[in-house]
Amino acid sequence: MAVQTVASTGSSTVDLGPAAALSCRECGHRVPLGPVFACEECFGPLEIAYDFSGYDTEELRARIESGPANIWRYAPLLPVPANVADKPNINPGWTKLVKADNLARELGVTGGLYVKDDSGNPTHSFKDRVVAQALEAARAFGFTTLSCSSTGNLAGAVGAAAARAGFRSCVFIPHDLEQGKVVMAAVYGGELVGIEGNYDDVNRFCSELIGDPAGEGWGFVNVNLRPYYAEGSKTLAYEICEQLGWRLPDQIVVPIASGSQLTKIDKGLQELIKLGLVEDRPYKIFGAQAEGCSPVSTAFKAGHDVVRPQKPDTIAKSLAIGNPADGPYVLDIARRTGGAVEDVTDEQVVAAIKLLARTEGIFAETAGGVTVGVTKKLIDDGVLDPSKTTVVLNTGDGLKTLDAVAGTGLTATIRPTLDSFREAGLA
Amino acid sequence: MAVQTVASTGSSTVDLGPAAALSCRECGHRVPLGPVFACEECFGPLEIAYDFSGYDTEELRARIESGPANIWRYAPLLPVPANVADKPNINPGWTKLVKADNLARELGVTGGLYVKDDSGNPTHSFKDRVVAQALEAARAFGFTTLSCSSTGNLAGAVGAAAARAGFRSCVFIPHDLEQGKVVMAAVYGGELVGIEGNYDDVNRFCSELIGDPAGEGWGFVNVNLRPYYAEGSKTLAYEICEQLGWRLPDQIVVPIASGSQLTKIDKGLQELIKLGLVEDRPYKIFGAQAEGCSPVSTAFKAGHDVVRPQKPDTIAKSLAIGNPADGPYVLDIARRTGGAVEDVTDEQVVAAIKLLARTEGIFAETAGGVTVGVTKKLIDDGVLDPSKTTVVLNTGDGLKTLDAVAGTGLTATIRPTLDSFREAGLA
Repeated sequence: MAVQTVASTGSSTVDLGPAAALSCRECGHRVPLGPVFACEECFGPLEIAYDFSGYDTEELRARIESGPANIWRYAPLLPVPANVADKPNINPGWTKLVKADNLARELGVTGGLYVKDDSGNPTHSFKDRVVAQALEAARAFGFTTLSCSSTGNLAGAVGAAAARAGFRSCVFIPHDLEQGKVVMAAVYGGELVGIEGNYDDVNRFCSELIGDPAGEGWGFVNVNLRPYYAEGSKTLAYEICEQLGWRLPDQIVVPIASGSQLTKIDKGLQELIKLGLVEDRPYKIFGAQAEGCSPVSTAFKAGHDVVRPQKPDTIAKSLAIGNPADGPYVLDIARRTGGAVEDVTDEQVVAAIKLLARTEGIFAETAGGVTVGVTKKLIDDGVLDPSKTTVVLNTGDGLKTLDAVAGTGLTATIRPTLDSFREAGLA
Repeated sequence: MAVQTVASTGSSTVDLGPAAALSCRECGHRVPLGPVFACEECFGPLEIAYDFSGYDTEELRARIESGPANIWRYAPLLPVPANVADKPNINPGWTKLVKADNLARELGVTGGLYVKDDSGNPTHSFKDRVVAQALEAARAFGFTTLSCSSTGNLAGAVGAAAARAGFRSCVFIPHDLEQGKVVMAAVYGGELVGIEGNYDDVNRFCSELIGDPAGEGWGFVNVNLRPYYAEGSKTLAYEICEQLGWRLPDQIVVPIASGSQLTKIDKGLQELIKLGLVEDRPYKIFGAQAEGCSPVSTAFKAGHDVVRPQKPDTIAKSLAIGNPADGPYVLDIARRTGGAVEDVTDEQVVAAIKLLARTEGIFAETAGGVTVGVTKKLIDDGVLDPSKTTVVLNTGDGLKTLDAVAGTGLTATIRPTLDSFREAGLA
């Protein structure tokens, strides 16, 4: 696909708040803000570079604390205009950080265990955070259509956000997706296009479309808007620290799909430290994968710096990216912070979903089963320190992956009489 | 079923904050707080009587505003101890009040249209509000099992809240419920008992169980804890007014199942007026039903004071109560405030779900389709004033009633080529 240069977009004067430029993660080359995602010098990934100079720590803290109960409370730290909260958007975030005392008891955690429960977002996954961010970039660049390729959560998030903000949406999915997932994406009334092919074919087609005049005015949230989109995950780090009373957790367990979320959580924590909003002390970041799609975990355990692609085969479909773009960065962060990357079997995922539901009343998507399952495994193996404050991410909602726990059912069937009730041993 | 008297429970010294006593809605007879729900004098329904004396308006407002981002910010106005936020509970509420400008344009509302979106609650329905309330009463009365009869949302809310709070739960459902609904209730790991019979049989059995020694120590959230449970709906009124900047809306559209929610919203608004937290000015409350279960709407239109039971036949299952206990009170409130009760067909419910999703990115349960559909109908009929501030309730999540919009699907299917894309007219 053609790498657009910024000059051609004429978008260097956009107001995206503290976002100052795009900077190549590999070679450091800087270009003005625009709908581009790959470095023109080395083809490395571009990410947002900020100008946070001039912020007074306590003024900033007060401004955040008096902000809205969603991600826009952190507008001064995001690539969005200062008045972002006044614009129509899906307004995700400020989800619950649940003190999970029952789960802590079961896992033997004594230092405080928390679940950051992103099923509380508008379309019930963390994707609302990144899509809301991409939407603001799309608005700034004058795009009128919001698009993506997806097999699930992202389709709903894009459809909903576009509807709220008055954008056209056009979402591409494999044509043979399960009917339930199609309905969840189609209900928002945008274009929902089935592609005759698998998810790779869908992605390849989207890349072609971006380079073609037919794709002009289209913002693909996770392609040409990816640098902006990805920043949405920083808000998870901000919220966790603020909800802990402006304190870094000792340990965080994060699911790995492309790996972007984990790297942005690290970026967010580093920013809070540099801005003086939290005390500078060590923290460890742990990555969680399903065994059936564990390229990063495999590389971590083998001591490799590169990630060898895998063909996914797991019930944790929202994490099933066999060739994760940010895999090497994840390995670096896990090693640098003293964390680890681990994986669990599908059976352990299901057991962990049930464990979290039974102990905390939180019904997680399979991705949440992966993080809880990996947390348990890391504790059992002595890798994760149970005496430290630990935060586990649940990034989605169990209602979207009901099949994973389809075996769950009635504990008893009785006739509508007290005798039958007693016979069943329920009294 | 035997009506327990309070003396036998010895629970008159429980600390439930400002809750002073139970008072009969029919004859005004007062009894001490306890797990009772029917008046021993006239068998009328008991409800909470409060002692709000000694509250200073501005102190109270400041205390609420600095409270947690959930229903416990209103602890001074609820039957809960002052330290309720420190106890393990599901902590629902403080859901979004969405300014629905796109929907307003489609419906011709110029005075400001808002959707109170209770799909943002922990188990994605307003039931979390009432169950959280019942749980605190159960704790105060020393119950150790939380129970209910249910065909859907309530089962999940009880299962989740009990899990978080460390209660045993035992939920009774008809044995032949759809597998998806069974899974949503079963995942929390409590007892889930299928009763061989229909929902009426389940209810009858639960009533027997309460009067039997086998049911000792059991809190049935919507039976012996009903006076406490029902108060949870007041928080919808509190939140709407606070989110409007401590202002009463001119018009509210509320779904009717038992009718309890509508009556408690009115109670909540009246309390805010009496406490001086909002200006005393007129408001109108409108009730919404599905045509296939419209006993209250039918009575309203016929000018009757009593509600004639109906046999429900509608896709809006969460509202399908054919003999609504609070029907007469709803009629009284709709007439007294100058509101109305209206109903829509299942087709209109589906169209309204899609309308709300397409305009605001909110995927509502069928009950939300009922309120949006009724709002549209009332505007079209000149009953609801489009120049006034109007709030419409969405009480549940579309993910739980996917079947209602199962007809929604792909807008196009193409091959993964730009030619195929152009042929489909998508460029």
